[in-house]
This record gives sequence, structure tokens and C-alpha cells, in this order.
Amino acid sequence: MTECILLTIGKELLIGQVIDTNSGWLGKELNDLGINVRRVLSVADDEKEIKEAIGYGLKNATIVIATGGLGPTRDDITKKCIADYFEDTLEFHQETYDGIVSIFKKFGREPQEAHRIQAFMPTKAIILKNNLGTAPGMLFKQENKLLLSLPGVPYEMKTIFSQHFAPILKRDYVKDIILHRTIRTVGIGESVLATEIDDIVNDFPEELNIAYLPSLGTVRLRLSANGKDEEELRKLIQAYETRILERIGEYVFGFDLNTLEESVQTLAVRQNKKIATAESCTGGAIAKRITSVPGASAYYEGSLICYSNELKTSMLNVNPKTLEKHGAVSEDTVIEMCHSCVDKLKVDLAVAVSGIAGPGGGSIEKPVGTVWLACGNKSHMVTKKLSLAKDRKLNIEYTTTYALNMLRKFLMTQ
Amino acid sequence: MTECILLTIGKELLIGQVIDTNSGWLGKELNDLGINVRRVLSVADDEKEIKEAIGYGLKNATIVIATGGLGPTRDDITKKCIADYFEDTLEFHQETYDGIVSIFKKFGREPQEAHRIQAFMPTKAIILKNNLGTAPGMLFKQENKLLLSLPGVPYEMKTIFSQHFAPILKRDYVKDIILHRTIRTVGIGESVLATEIDDIVNDFPEELNIAYLPSLGTVRLRLSANGKDEEELRKLIQAYETRILERIGEYVFGFDLNTLEESVQTLAVRQNKKIATAESCTGGAIAKRITSVPGASAYYEGSLICYSNELKTSMLNVNPKTLEKHGAVSEDTVIEMCHSCVDKLKVDLAVAVSGIAGPGGGSIEKPVGTVWLACGNKSHMVTKKLSLAKDRKLNIEYTTTYALNMLRKFLMTQ
Repeated sequence: MTECILLTIGKELLIGQVIDTNSGWLGKELNDLGINVRRVLSVADDEKEIKEAIGYGLKNATIVIATGGLGPTRDDITKKCIADYFEDTLEFHQETYDGIVSIFKKFGREPQEAHRIQAFMPTKAIILKNNLGTAPGMLFKQENKLLLSLPGVPYEMKTIFSQHFAPILKRDYVKDIILHRTIRTVGIGESVLATEIDDIVNDFPEELNIAYLPSLGTVRLRLSANGKDEEELRKLIQAYETRILERIGEYVFGFDLNTLEESVQTLAVRQNKKIATAESCTGGAIAKRITSVPGASAYYEGSLICYSNELKTSMLNVNPKTLEKHGAVSEDTVIEMCHSCVDKLKVDLAVAVSGIAGPGGGSIEKPVGTVWLACGNKSHMVTKKLSLAKDRKLNIEYTTTYALNMLRKFLMTQ
Repeated sequence: MTECILLTIGKELLIGQVIDTNSGWLGKELNDLGINVRRVLSVADDEKEIKEAIGYGLKNATIVIATGGLGPTRDDITKKCIADYFEDTLEFHQETYDGIVSIFKKFGREPQEAHRIQAFMPTKAIILKNNLGTAPGMLFKQENKLLLSLPGVPYEMKTIFSQHFAPILKRDYVKDIILHRTIRTVGIGESVLATEIDDIVNDFPEELNIAYLPSLGTVRLRLSANGKDEEELRKLIQAYETRILERIGEYVFGFDLNTLEESVQTLAVRQNKKIATAESCTGGAIAKRITSVPGASAYYEGSLICYSNELKTSMLNVNPKTLEKHGAVSEDTVIEMCHSCVDKLKVDLAVAVSGIAGPGGGSIEKPVGTVWLACGNKSHMVTKKLSLAKDRKLNIEYTTTYALNMLRKFLMTQ
């Protein structure tokens, strides 16, 4: 399999000011093409570091893809470093400049002097046009090795890669085939899951591998098969997938890139059910995940985010006596929230959440991390109390996942 | 300055199934301590790759911190690889096993056989206790170099680092001082910003550097100063910060880790103003960002997320005639939404949003990316039309940032 090393360039990546998502996207695309991303290396926008990184990349892989450092500002030095590395010079490139001018025209603006400098390109590189920004991609060939330099702005990087570079890879560099299948579970821990299917995994032939990828409340099982015959690999994965599903099917909400919110959407649309949410401590996080899926408007009506107790009463008809007697974070309150949500928003099903996300607001009986959820409709409702940790962000995220899984499970039993 | 290389271990990082956020967090912590993170290297959970990466790290830096691959499943091989590298063996470590047992007890569960194996530790390592999970940290010393291995689970990794390792670094490895100051702007592009302050940046002394870090709708300017005298460096940064603020102050919403939503909160709380939101296309994204800040309940009342036209009428009193004549995505609709939100939720100020996030729902007059916003109260309201791109996620994110900045600007003029 052709090996690739990704270089991400920028001091901001090393000091945690920007999280590198480009290498993840490229990793997925390359892997899907059958190119093995061997390593990812991040270095500062420093001449010596960039040149050393290029050398390291080309020594250890056939293909090196560098992102970042092509912008118009003075800390953008990648182009100069690559040109030096290949003993090349920069010359004014009319086509690139014309592209920059036309982008600025679209926004009714004039290019700056810095953009003229951006149009100086290495003479030995194949220039890959950037229709969305001012810095084109640059492709260098040296013997049988390739170095591709892409801008760090994600949508520009993605477009240049997909339009111009992926076709070259497909034509000249894809040998082995690698297939992945990811089984996505919710509501079961990594080690229990591993024990449950241990005997099946022990049966795996050499060309099949498994990885456990836990995140908050969910675990992904990734099966990978490597070989020459795509059909055979597909069958191999399918056979073991079937065995795993027989064992742990109840925890599986989807496959590959399916999200929990997509599985809720699929079930709701199929059953022609309308859904709404009533959120307090999650503050819109459930609504946000639901509406992140294109087409959510087909089943999702909306949310009443009642952060204050006044709104819980005025908008969600929670009885002030309930709030007084049991508190805003109580089973009684979420049941009333859920009932009113179904009523007022005229939906078939709702989920309601009230909790103490933290860091403030906790007490001895109800510490930070106490969350109540209710999910259902007028005839049937399920409630759940969670006792989570002290971290606000994690509490919101875990509760959101839990609420989505309650919707999913409720729809499954319909 | 002491150099450090971070190793992140796991095939999932190379094929884009998990985005590495650990190295970003470690980078920030180390940088704040005055340790220079020289490079970040990600490799697969493969014996040869891990051993080569350790060698590479120790050759190129004084400190190597590896994360990942310490779990109980069969793809977790980091511990074995490190022990081999240091020609060490694994022995049963009672204290670690006791820790594992006590964690399981807390959840009323019994440890599995796989967890007993996790208690076998390298004899040459200093074991750094993990109170939150089953895999402790391991610290190896070789001459004057350090290798630290941490679990990949973020909160476990963070706690072990902060409790056990940061004190060692402070005592023995901090020499130079590096200070950062980040100026956070919104509503001005990177290249215009760079041109605006070009003459100031040309005046920078050698020990001062600037980086431009653009993201969707915002640009961060990071000033970095490097040297021996903390007080002097602080003054140097302050002097140039003042000059920059005089030039572009109107675009600055905060500093360092301040977010736009924090600056809204600070302004609202200071002015004792209550705020609510009425969201359609952003589907809770504005509410989510507002409520991600601890203490948001002090000023934020809630949100009416009216995804469907029916709810825009029933919950937000938008006149059906307005919807019919101008459509749900129109200036008239967002004005009515904003007015009703202020009224019904009894707040001093609201922002309302309606748009076509995509990928579906666009038309010739109103293509995907058309968004209307209104911000204000009964006596004063500002509206804005955005013409964004085709990407649903980016449209939601950009609109959210824009809406938060409208709130900020409205509060600034109060």
C-alpha cells in the first residue's frame, strides 16, 4: 500500500490555539482511497523545522501532504521553504494572480499588495487552482515521490484535494485495498463490550483487525480488512459484523459515519413522528445536534429552552408548586416539561431535560452533575436520573447523547 | 528553552475517526509553563511505529509525552512497546490494582480479567496514579531525558499531567520564559487586519512575534515574547498591544481565551440586562454557545427554537400573512420574531435568526446561505441579511458568531 505522511504547519497547532482537523479529514479521504497514512507530523512555521519535516516526510513515505502556511501574512513561509528545499525559485504566475483578482471582484474588493506576492509561485511545481481562496495548491514530483502543499483553510484545502489531487492518486498510486466498517454503540462501556465479543475477535483471520474507539457515552468498533480482492474483503467484514450484531445488537445505533441524531431522524421520518425538545441545562445542545442533520425540518418542530424557572412556568406550564416542592431539577419537573412540550408544540414525542451542569448551582442533595430526563408522550413516558461529574461541558455533552438515545429507544419500541 | 515532542498513538487518529485534541491541550499547558513543544507526531498503534516514534522523540527533544494505547483492549500496546524500548519488564503492581478495584467499587462493579493485566507495570517507571481511570501514567528517565506515557482519555490524561507531571517540570525543566497575549477580533478579515497594523508589526523588536489565526468570522492576533525577564516581556507586549488596540479596537471583543459568548455575558451582567434568543436555522446553536459559559443563567432566560412555520406563528406570534407575503426567511419575519421574543420571554434584548442553512430548501431568489437576523428591543432594532455559502455546518456556525456579535455591539452602545 502506498504510504503517506501528513505535515501540518503552524505554531498555533503546537501551543493549542488551533486544533488540527485538516489531518483528520485528509486521513479519512486517503484511507478511503487505499492510501496508508503512516504518520502525521506537526511543526512550527519556522524555516529549519519545515525543511527538516519535508525531508523526514519524503524519506519515510512516497507521498507527503503539507497543509498551512500559504496565507498572505508574514508568518506564512511554507512556499518559500518548499521552493528552497527543491532548489527552485518563485516567479510571478499570471493565472494565479487572475484567480485572486476574480475572487476579490466577487466580493467587490481590490486585492492588496500582499496578494500580489501570493501570486509568485515555484517554477518546478504543478499549480493546482484554488477557486475559493488566494493560495493555490502546489505539487512537486521528485523521482517517484510526491509533495503536495495545500492551504490550511479547511474548505479550500478540501476542495483542491478532491478536485485536483484525488484523481492523480487514484490513477497512479492506489495498489492495495483497505476496507473499514464501523459499528456504533451507545450505552455500553468499552471493556464490557470487549469481553462480550472476545471469542469472536479471537476468531479473526490475519487480514481482519478491530479497534475500540470510546467517546462520551458511545463506543465505535472499527473492523478493518486489508488485501487485494475487494469483494472477498467485503464478505469477510460482513460475516464478522453479523456475528457481532447477534451478540450486541441492542446497543448498536448505526454504522460508519451515522450519528445518533441521524438514527433518530431516520426512525422518526420512517414512522412519520413529529418530535420536539424542552431543554434547561443542556441549553440548546440537543436541538443543535438534531438540527445539524440536513432534513431535520421533516420531523423536528423546535425546542423550548427554558433556562430560568420563570420560563419553565410561563412557557412550559410547570406548576410553581412542583418547582417549590421538588425543585427545577426533579422527576416531577421534567415530566411536566415533557407533557407541556408535547401539548404546546403539538408533537408525537418529546424529550425534556433539567439538571445542574456546573460548576455552580450544586447542593448536598443535588450535587453538580445531577440531571433528570423524561422522554415520551401523553400515554407513555420514561424518566431517568443521571449522576454525572463536575465538568460543565462533559455534563452537557453526555446528557445530550443520553437524551438522543432515549428518543431512539422510544422510537424503536413504537 | 526545554524542548518537548508530543506523540499521539492510535490508528484512529491517522484515518480521521478521532480528532486529536490531547496534543492541543498539552501544547497549551506546556507552553504556559515555558516548555517549547517542538513537534507533534501521530503514529499507529503498531509496535515498530511506536518504538521508532519514541526514538525519534528522545533524539529531538529533552521531554517526550506520549498519549494513548494504555487501555484494556488488545489494540492497546503502548505500555509493552515502551517497556521493550527501555529493556524493561512488566510486573504486577499491587497499588495500581488496588486503584482499579476501588474505581470499580465506586460504580458497584467488579474489575474484569483485562483490568488485572492493566495492573502489570514496567519496573523502571515511576508510576503516576490515575484516580479517574484504570491506566496510570508512567515516567521514564534516561540520562537527562524524560518519557511520560499518559492514557488517551482526555480527562484522565489532563488530571495526571496537572497533578503529577507539571510540578516536576516546574522544578527541573523550566528555563526561558515565553509570554503570549491573544487579541480576539470579529468582523474584519485577516488580510485587511494585517494591512491595518503592518507599520506597527514592522516596528516589533526581535523578541516579539505575531501570528494571525483566522477562523470563521473571527481572527485572533497572537503576540509572543521570548526571553529571561518576565516583567520586561510583559511590558513589551503591553506597549504593542496598546498601539494595536488604538488602531483596530472596534473589532476587538476579548483577549486570550475569552470567547465572544463570554464577552456578551460580561456586558449583559454588568448592565443587568436579560437576554433571550429566537432561532430557526441555527437550531439551538446560539443558545448552546451562550449556555456553554458557566453563569449564563445570570442573564440568559432561554430560547424559542421554532424550526417549523407553525411554531413561528403559535409560539412567536409571527403573522401568517407575513410568512405568506415575505416568507419565513425575510426581514419582516425576523423583526416579528425578535419583537415577540422580547415580549413573551420578558427580556431587555433578543436576537432572532431565520435562514436557509442547506443543503436543501434554497430557491433562485433565496439561495442556500440566505440568512436574516434581527437584534434589539422594542425601541431599537438592527437587522442584517447574510449571503453565505452552501455548507450547512459553516452557515450555522458563521450565523451564530454573527448573532453573538450583534448582541455584543448592541450592548456596547447601551
